[in-house]
Amino acid sequence: MSGYHVAVVGATGAVGTRMLKMVAESKLPIASVLALASKRSEGKTVPFRDGTLTVHETTDDAFKGIDIALFSAGGSVSKRFAPAAVKAGAVVVDNTSAFRMEPDIPLVVPEVNPEALRTHHGIIANPNCSTIQMVTALEPIRKAFGLKQVVVSTYQAVSGAGQSAMNELFDETQAALDDKPLEPKILPTASDKKHYPIAFNALPQIDVFEPDGYSHEEWKMIHETKKIMAGDMNSDAIKVTATCVRIPVPIAHSEEVYFEIEDANATADDIRAALNDAPGVVVQDDPSQQLYPQAMNAVGSKEVFVGRIRPDAENPRFFHMWDVSDNLLKGAAWNSMQIAETMDAMGLIQPK
Amino acid sequence: MSGYHVAVVGATGAVGTRMLKMVAESKLPIASVLALASKRSEGKTVPFRDGTLTVHETTDDAFKGIDIALFSAGGSVSKRFAPAAVKAGAVVVDNTSAFRMEPDIPLVVPEVNPEALRTHHGIIANPNCSTIQMVTALEPIRKAFGLKQVVVSTYQAVSGAGQSAMNELFDETQAALDDKPLEPKILPTASDKKHYPIAFNALPQIDVFEPDGYSHEEWKMIHETKKIMAGDMNSDAIKVTATCVRIPVPIAHSEEVYFEIEDANATADDIRAALNDAPGVVVQDDPSQQLYPQAMNAVGSKEVFVGRIRPDAENPRFFHMWDVSDNLLKGAAWNSMQIAETMDAMGLIQPK
Repeated sequence: MSGYHVAVVGATGAVGTRMLKMVAESKLPIASVLALASKRSEGKTVPFRDGTLTVHETTDDAFKGIDIALFSAGGSVSKRFAPAAVKAGAVVVDNTSAFRMEPDIPLVVPEVNPEALRTHHGIIANPNCSTIQMVTALEPIRKAFGLKQVVVSTYQAVSGAGQSAMNELFDETQAALDDKPLEPKILPTASDKKHYPIAFNALPQIDVFEPDGYSHEEWKMIHETKKIMAGDMNSDAIKVTATCVRIPVPIAHSEEVYFEIEDANATADDIRAALNDAPGVVVQDDPSQQLYPQAMNAVGSKEVFVGRIRPDAENPRFFHMWDVSDNLLKGAAWNSMQIAETMDAMGLIQPK
Repeated sequence: MSGYHVAVVGATGAVGTRMLKMVAESKLPIASVLALASKRSEGKTVPFRDGTLTVHETTDDAFKGIDIALFSAGGSVSKRFAPAAVKAGAVVVDNTSAFRMEPDIPLVVPEVNPEALRTHHGIIANPNCSTIQMVTALEPIRKAFGLKQVVVSTYQAVSGAGQSAMNELFDETQAALDDKPLEPKILPTASDKKHYPIAFNALPQIDVFEPDGYSHEEWKMIHETKKIMAGDMNSDAIKVTATCVRIPVPIAHSEEVYFEIEDANATADDIRAALNDAPGVVVQDDPSQQLYPQAMNAVGSKEVFVGRIRPDAENPRFFHMWDVSDNLLKGAAWNSMQIAETMDAMGLIQPK
């Protein structure tokens, strides 16, 4: 069968299983799909279309004949195996932070900066989940009215820390309801020393902290937004500052975005109109009908939902919006597959 | 026994039961305590010290001999009965929004504007929970460095909507864990038409919406902050804008506060030092030790906890902080009792 030979690395994870779903739903011709993971998962099966795939170990030789390799098994796995995949002739779409800040590696959200794909050398970085949904909603605003600065406060879902963190949320919540304590082992982040309950709590730490007091996640949002929207992670064309917070929601990030535009005449209605016409965005904004995006309603959808658009009453050109999206889909698996589809549409990759 | 005769109106509610606790813990001499509620609750008992109090119906005559009346039974009850309490000779501390915006009624957070108490005519308004904890943390910053503007994003606990909303959170969460749907009946707010799940969700609506797209809660934060910190609900001395969001936490609000100071030389360390010396504030701010305020840890404490203090890397004079407090204590019952204690200390009330 002619078509793309696709590998998913990290196929057993929260994102990997959804990557397989995105491959199954893709409009691209798919010739074969290879599920890769660590040696520990070798021989397990993962669902694919109506059947299953057997998981194989990720090795240098595993990528022979692969055209598209979607990586989501952690930064160290990407660093170790992405070069082998490229060497084997595959285009790598990497959903980890391993390569995002490399100046010559495109960091792409297809609705925002697809042209960056033309400069690729085999690896395309998929941005951080919290960045993707925000820039998808901000780009139509930037295009229509100019964008000077962004202040974002996130309300992030636990699945951003993986399937095991989601399990921790559910186990901890049940224990709390039963008034039985349960020792947290993963959140706020597996890679830091102390672990705190997320059930019925809010944790203003995502990833580890830098000495300057910002978390990695916050710097990711700042640098990635600049690189995607202004071409350079240190650009001063758009100012960005961020506060990232984990809340007891399993899937779908919510974000309060406070932003300044250049156009002094644009109204909230103008912004809604620009977003209504934008790809990948669904406006849900009618307070009189209590219509606004909700995490619970975004689960399983590929779009970014935007509402609560309103001007700051005292600062001209400043507005608020509330954006919500499934962090495992548009924030990860779907954006990765969408990058492959966009490369196909631009003629940057062809099926064998 | 000489001392104050205190009535608590709404004594069976989430705030009322805590008001009784604050009365019991107060340093004021307490001669008697009267638990008042609606006719429906008449004859019920509520805990007080090591025993209980029998609940009586709130009537015009109930306030005879009362020196201090703490109201927390909804705005309509305050409007109906606060004048009777004042007429009977009591000072009313009202924890509803009924009188907050009346220009001649003081709106007081004792750490911020105790002098406003001197102008009272019998009723003192207790601010909204989300406002109180923010201004308690902002006032030491304003005093030391000047304060130009505030952009706040809240992560608010369900108990702000009352005990029944807290029960809804727990019931809904158990139902979700059991994969059984449960029709939401209260949140986001009992007074609006549609109700949405809060379990494992985030709801960007607290109270009803104004036609301008802001919620009442957001306007409360804006107007109350101006009235408390700048003397007038429409003051332009401090700009304020707000986004209020309910999250699945039972007790204790968290807030990301982005603010601009006047002093161009102040650092995050200077701000921490000012907060360390401030009444009612506890600084918990050491990212290297993963120390920051958490809702779960603030439950039952009277203080406002502040952390994650850091400058905006691109906007001079702009900083972030994360404040957390028990919305039922400093946000309601404790601030109300503290107002009474402050009036006693200022000689504005005396025990009989």
